[in-house]
Amino acid sequence: MKIFDQARELALIESSASVLGWDQETYLPPAGREHRAAQLSWLSSRAHELVTSEAWRQDLETAERTNPGHESKLAANLRELRRDFDRAHKLPVELVARATTVSSLAKHAWAEARERSDFAHFAPHLEKLLGIAREKADRWGYTGEPYDALLEGYERGTSTAAVATLLENLGHELRDVSARAVAKSTARAPRLPAGPYPVAAQQRFNARVAEAAGYDFQAGRIDTTTHPFCTGLGPRDIRLTTRYDEQDFTSSLFGVLHEAGHGMYEQGLPQADYGLPSGTAVSLGIHESQSRLWENHVGRSRTFWERWYPAAQECFPPLVGFPLDDFLAYLWCAAFSPIRVESDEATYDLHIILRFGLERRMLNGTLAVRDVPAAWNEGFRHLFGFTPENDRAGCLQDIHWSMGGLGYFSTYTLGNINAAQLFAAARRDPAVGPAIDRAEYGPLLAWLRKSVHAHGATLNPADLIRQATGSAPTTQDYLAHLKARYL
Amino acid sequence: MKIFDQARELALIESSASVLGWDQETYLPPAGREHRAAQLSWLSSRAHELVTSEAWRQDLETAERTNPGHESKLAANLRELRRDFDRAHKLPVELVARATTVSSLAKHAWAEARERSDFAHFAPHLEKLLGIAREKADRWGYTGEPYDALLEGYERGTSTAAVATLLENLGHELRDVSARAVAKSTARAPRLPAGPYPVAAQQRFNARVAEAAGYDFQAGRIDTTTHPFCTGLGPRDIRLTTRYDEQDFTSSLFGVLHEAGHGMYEQGLPQADYGLPSGTAVSLGIHESQSRLWENHVGRSRTFWERWYPAAQECFPPLVGFPLDDFLAYLWCAAFSPIRVESDEATYDLHIILRFGLERRMLNGTLAVRDVPAAWNEGFRHLFGFTPENDRAGCLQDIHWSMGGLGYFSTYTLGNINAAQLFAAARRDPAVGPAIDRAEYGPLLAWLRKSVHAHGATLNPADLIRQATGSAPTTQDYLAHLKARYL
Repeated sequence: MKIFDQARELALIESSASVLGWDQETYLPPAGREHRAAQLSWLSSRAHELVTSEAWRQDLETAERTNPGHESKLAANLRELRRDFDRAHKLPVELVARATTVSSLAKHAWAEARERSDFAHFAPHLEKLLGIAREKADRWGYTGEPYDALLEGYERGTSTAAVATLLENLGHELRDVSARAVAKSTARAPRLPAGPYPVAAQQRFNARVAEAAGYDFQAGRIDTTTHPFCTGLGPRDIRLTTRYDEQDFTSSLFGVLHEAGHGMYEQGLPQADYGLPSGTAVSLGIHESQSRLWENHVGRSRTFWERWYPAAQECFPPLVGFPLDDFLAYLWCAAFSPIRVESDEATYDLHIILRFGLERRMLNGTLAVRDVPAAWNEGFRHLFGFTPENDRAGCLQDIHWSMGGLGYFSTYTLGNINAAQLFAAARRDPAVGPAIDRAEYGPLLAWLRKSVHAHGATLNPADLIRQATGSAPTTQDYLAHLKARYL
Repeated sequence: MKIFDQARELALIESSASVLGWDQETYLPPAGREHRAAQLSWLSSRAHELVTSEAWRQDLETAERTNPGHESKLAANLRELRRDFDRAHKLPVELVARATTVSSLAKHAWAEARERSDFAHFAPHLEKLLGIAREKADRWGYTGEPYDALLEGYERGTSTAAVATLLENLGHELRDVSARAVAKSTARAPRLPAGPYPVAAQQRFNARVAEAAGYDFQAGRIDTTTHPFCTGLGPRDIRLTTRYDEQDFTSSLFGVLHEAGHGMYEQGLPQADYGLPSGTAVSLGIHESQSRLWENHVGRSRTFWERWYPAAQECFPPLVGFPLDDFLAYLWCAAFSPIRVESDEATYDLHIILRFGLERRMLNGTLAVRDVPAAWNEGFRHLFGFTPENDRAGCLQDIHWSMGGLGYFSTYTLGNINAAQLFAAARRDPAVGPAIDRAEYGPLLAWLRKSVHAHGATLNPADLIRQATGSAPTTQDYLAHLKARYL
């Protein structure tokens, strides 16, 4: 299939850009930034040229005329390539260029506005970003509401209404669960023994844990960045980053487990299909399910620490004499923070529920930009029982909107929901559950490989979950997990 | 000038490949190699497409019709772009492809042959490599001998005869100088105190020294590789690598000083001209002059260590109590080694003289491939007074020929000669000499910036040397330096 060759060439270009992007975040000398931007822009122009070429369109049409069977991988690949092609071609070049300019200016304005806690400085930019998001939604088309069209780009085949139902179900109980978890933690909140936990020791420990989880260092590595991430530079080159706190080794460790979850997903995609939809991760919500599963369901569990705590104590002398139960109570501390990225498992999704509701209303035109701070604070008080002290700790805290990332936040909670549902299903497998209880994760990874990774993007996220777990996405397992751990 | 835009686009492609190449040598996970090769091959195809495009040819011709003044930078840029264009277009695509295949197979065969010390295994490959080199030389054209045409690719505007004269002048005295230096060292050869010299301490010390020399870490960095190198990833992103020996900190230090010499040259090229000949290093012989100048004339000098030895002693406890004079005697130890890369300043060029003579005869057809081992051993005995114990330590030791790198070795010695001549001229400048005596290198770097770096590739190497030093390339300063240091 010539269209597959084209798709593979696109992957070569995009993965080359990933190398340059990874280097930019890890090792690039400061003075090298300007030239790096020019290199990345050249690569991105080549990618754009390729996907908008007449050859690409013709090769896709030629392949479609072969009429593959509906159920085949070939059919799924062509369907997804067509979907991407149509979505890309519905946006005029002018709009794409305008979106880039607007969000580039908006990012700077947002950073300044956040610094000064001055929403009015960001408001006109948010207005423009919303305008562009609505324009895109109109061009892509939707049946329900504009959020649908945006969501489709991150979590295809689902609807805003379906996400809203899940988030409402979750929020309904979570308000109570989180309040009780926080109250319980306030009563008993052990502190981690004072460090230092030297970076070199953290690196050794993290690498041992990541390897035991199944992250393949032959096809990956861990570097240091301010904001941890996972990136694919090739089918067998999936790299993680983390950051270190010498007073708390768990910060880098859970960063590594989270990113290794993403990384094992990428390492588990069918290599021979690299560059094709069948060799590509399907959605943000499924990607995040993998990171959350390893970070929270595995990494924060009692069985995990029964296995690893002695090794941690050997690695980190301050832990000697600190009982495992105290350590677990420290890990399971819940607290209400105004800041999403500082919040814990028991309270995280309240932040998402707030953002999802506000974004929907902004996109529907029922919430004016100037009213966002008030709506944020009111929504926040309703969920958390207090109001952030200013907009910097409130509606200005996240970078996402300034980058044009509207319709994105909900996928974090979808990830949490999917993670719990997948983990529960895996546990029910007699080859997996008992192994997890022994802190052996080979069978769990094999189950994820087979049930999730092997499908690439050939199934819609909801279908993937249904096929892997036996039921449609539901909040039941996630709520059960939170209650079991935090109450 | 549209042709300059084209040249700048080529630099974007090639520097992107440099990022991927740098990563391949430093951080690439083992399983990522195959995809990396595909990425690099894609980039190299784009570069090839660009320089062989009809647009490139037309834009160059259009620019040439503007008839710029002979002495202008514009004229020099067009002259050099034309030179590269003509050289590239004289080789048919088929020959370039064949050369790649032959040297790819030859590299493997050479590695096996060296391992087994079995020249016969490599001989048929060397035969083919020679054939390709002669074919290239014929297509490029030459007036004297085939070596001229190859040399032009590394050291333009010079001739084999001119290089031969320099090397003969040098060799004539060097045989005696090196023998006396070795005899002197044998009589008094202090050993470096036993380590360990921990890697982290070496890294701190090397970075201080490199920074004091003038290497700009805002536009560079140092990483670790098996074979040290310097590579440019952009006009303000020039990276070095080194390797560490925990028993001898001078190994990584002189590696860093050598590569930093290359790096400061690249950092000193006119940034606004990046991608154009006027913003590009002119030749291997000039590049190597910069590395050797900083490594040997600065880094191995007494004044340098009078300044830095106390800092080294603070960094490396084993040095405490080891007198500076003993340390310098250790640095200035000369010994005859059969291996070029293990040899010292006083004996290095004998290795090059040997290779230059053999290459010339092979290319002229007066030395048959099957006779290379005997000719090597005979030549070696003549220069060093003994014979290598086998071909592995003899004619099979270097990778260069197997990569098709014929006509290349002589530039190492040209670098040594140029380094001494430039350093002597810089010393004569009243703003530079006294500063060097105080181990202050800012004025020296400023002199090199002005006299060498600022010219990019607008002057031929010999003209550059003449303009910077007041005389044509001569071995006089180099021999004086070796005698002063080693006798």
